[in-house]
Amino acid sequence: MEINSDRLWSRIQALGEIGRTKEGGVTRFAFSSEDRKATDQVMEWMKEAGLQIYTDSIGNIFGRRNGLEEGASVLIGSHIDSVVNGGKFDGVAGVLSALEVIQVLEENNEHTKLPIEMVIFVNEEGSRFPGGLMGSMALAGRLPKDIVDTLKDSEGITLREALNEFGLSPDKIKEAHCTKGKFEAFFELHIEQGVVLEDQNVPVGIVNGIAGPYQLVVEISGRSGHAGAIPMYLRRDPMVVAGMAIQEVERSAIEEGETIRGTVGKIEAFPGGHNIIPAKVEFTVDYRDIDPENRLRAVNRLKNFIERQCKKRKLQYKIITTQDTPPTILDQRIVNFMEETAEENNISSFTMPSGAAHDAMNMHSLCPTGMIFVRSREGLSHCPEEYSSKEDLTEASSLLLHTVIRTANGILEKIKS
Amino acid sequence: MEINSDRLWSRIQALGEIGRTKEGGVTRFAFSSEDRKATDQVMEWMKEAGLQIYTDSIGNIFGRRNGLEEGASVLIGSHIDSVVNGGKFDGVAGVLSALEVIQVLEENNEHTKLPIEMVIFVNEEGSRFPGGLMGSMALAGRLPKDIVDTLKDSEGITLREALNEFGLSPDKIKEAHCTKGKFEAFFELHIEQGVVLEDQNVPVGIVNGIAGPYQLVVEISGRSGHAGAIPMYLRRDPMVVAGMAIQEVERSAIEEGETIRGTVGKIEAFPGGHNIIPAKVEFTVDYRDIDPENRLRAVNRLKNFIERQCKKRKLQYKIITTQDTPPTILDQRIVNFMEETAEENNISSFTMPSGAAHDAMNMHSLCPTGMIFVRSREGLSHCPEEYSSKEDLTEASSLLLHTVIRTANGILEKIKS
Repeated sequence: MEINSDRLWSRIQALGEIGRTKEGGVTRFAFSSEDRKATDQVMEWMKEAGLQIYTDSIGNIFGRRNGLEEGASVLIGSHIDSVVNGGKFDGVAGVLSALEVIQVLEENNEHTKLPIEMVIFVNEEGSRFPGGLMGSMALAGRLPKDIVDTLKDSEGITLREALNEFGLSPDKIKEAHCTKGKFEAFFELHIEQGVVLEDQNVPVGIVNGIAGPYQLVVEISGRSGHAGAIPMYLRRDPMVVAGMAIQEVERSAIEEGETIRGTVGKIEAFPGGHNIIPAKVEFTVDYRDIDPENRLRAVNRLKNFIERQCKKRKLQYKIITTQDTPPTILDQRIVNFMEETAEENNISSFTMPSGAAHDAMNMHSLCPTGMIFVRSREGLSHCPEEYSSKEDLTEASSLLLHTVIRTANGILEKIKS
Repeated sequence: MEINSDRLWSRIQALGEIGRTKEGGVTRFAFSSEDRKATDQVMEWMKEAGLQIYTDSIGNIFGRRNGLEEGASVLIGSHIDSVVNGGKFDGVAGVLSALEVIQVLEENNEHTKLPIEMVIFVNEEGSRFPGGLMGSMALAGRLPKDIVDTLKDSEGITLREALNEFGLSPDKIKEAHCTKGKFEAFFELHIEQGVVLEDQNVPVGIVNGIAGPYQLVVEISGRSGHAGAIPMYLRRDPMVVAGMAIQEVERSAIEEGETIRGTVGKIEAFPGGHNIIPAKVEFTVDYRDIDPENRLRAVNRLKNFIERQCKKRKLQYKIITTQDTPPTILDQRIVNFMEETAEENNISSFTMPSGAAHDAMNMHSLCPTGMIFVRSREGLSHCPEEYSSKEDLTEASSLLLHTVIRTANGILEKIKS
């Protein structure tokens, strides 16, 4: 039984034409006409594969293939909405590989014990309605209260209005919440969006955890003045401590754990003149790890460092925590079982954490969850240059196929006992 | 013979009402109606002091008091234009202390051998027409060719149009260029705009040189990526090297000489997302020193540092020199003579370089030039909080008075011989 590599590839290309930008990227926001056109196209293919299609109250689209027995179904899928001028693989690869897996089973007349369902999660990117991961949050019962009225797009349109316009029922979104027994397992295939697999020279990743972001905004204030008029020994320059803190973010990430990442992505000086010592420098810090203790150690180390340096140089500082999401550790038995499946099918794989957030984070609270990564070229993502090769997509889809067959035939039940 | 402290102070306050902002500062651009109103007021006081008023083709205003003999005149003065929401002392203190000096001589019937003139330099700040120091550049014959047509304000109005509207003759601005023998000497009193005098607990500064700015724009480029998806060991993050370079600017300024100053006043990361490793970081560097060799050593040290770090981390960089103005070293004989004058008159003074640029830089090319600084509160300048006390202004004006008397009675001739 083999993945139809050409079909998978040509469908990815075809979907990339819907919402295509002049730079060759894709802009396809949730609840837009492009989103509607793209889901209509995928549903047409789903029908071709013999799936029973249904949607839930938040707009997630499901396609079901019955099993030989009644019972919890094995869920596979991802999303097809995009960021502004994003790539054509992010999300799409996961949805179309799920479809491909089911269609191959159908064509080979291969019937599994448990039902298999595929899903197109709604608004994963949060490009129009911020936050994202909306479809999986709804399944997991994690949507914030009153979200339909409080969440607005940049034009002030509420989620309620958008859902109504899309033919959905905003007052019923809670009905999307699934019971814990509904799914036997969830598997998501996704492009890596990083450079680890490329560096390891391996096409497929098996994800053992999803790092949780801990984000800070740091403000350091000192004494402004003319760049020429204030001698070095009389300065209270916040820029110098900002420079030191940037390095401390790197050092702490390297030294406090193997999987931790620390980034300063944004910085601004005020008033920001080339001949003015800044009065204030503001920058963001993003730490991520699958190990919450390492992450906390790095955060505290940075806070202490900034405190010490500011005291030494008579500066003031303010550190605001803007996000503190716990990491998601995937079930080690799922990881082991996927590693075995890869080995048995001669699929070269590398086990690694995911640095980016995914719908799998929410699904993990509902059922055993696994993720498969596909090697990305140069780690480029959320841009027109995003690329994964046909061969790598085929390898990863093949691992998904064999993982799904074994799960739908009851492997998890055996592992548990 | 004494400075009329109350008159000087009340005139500074009165001028601070012209172009006053709601924050208590002053906005008075060159060639504006506020500028016109303020110069009209000063000219009224100049007449009261018995001065013969004339203007040159660029708009500098002069007031002359004849000497007992014909000959080169001793020139004193500064400017009265301001930055946006600036302070009421910058420039104004120099113009009104010059007026005060001449008025005191007049009231005491004290006649000097050489004529004394005061000047209000036009467009020192460059707030409307960039560049500034325009009046003194015209005297020194340093105006760029075609400046009347090439220089425009933010609304696209050319200097030619502004000069015409102000009743001046744009085609004749070259006539403002003075011959070398016209002035015996030039002295400018100005607020310090720094914290050296405050730190030294001394009211008056004698300036021994004006630091020249050497300004750079540094661009460091690496590889962007998701803050979560790229492990530390696979990063090529320009932000970290920017952080190191900021510290190297400080270190090089401290270590390469006593009078050098190094500042990073502006920084930006691209694309600038809190969860994105920057593709590029851009920042400005401003080095100043009265010693050009120290300055060059610091610049080269920084360039080498950036080159080394970028090579090590596989980053690209671009360093653009945006300004390279040589320092102005004031004549040591002038400095000595002013130090003596201060001592003889019991004026507590401290000899120091100026970090900021002044009209004195241009005048230095025409005649022996000296500068007197007045202590600034907390080094604040170009803001409503700018302040120098009545007592300090009086002390500094007193030094100006005695310096002018001695110069106008031929001290320089004696020193030279």
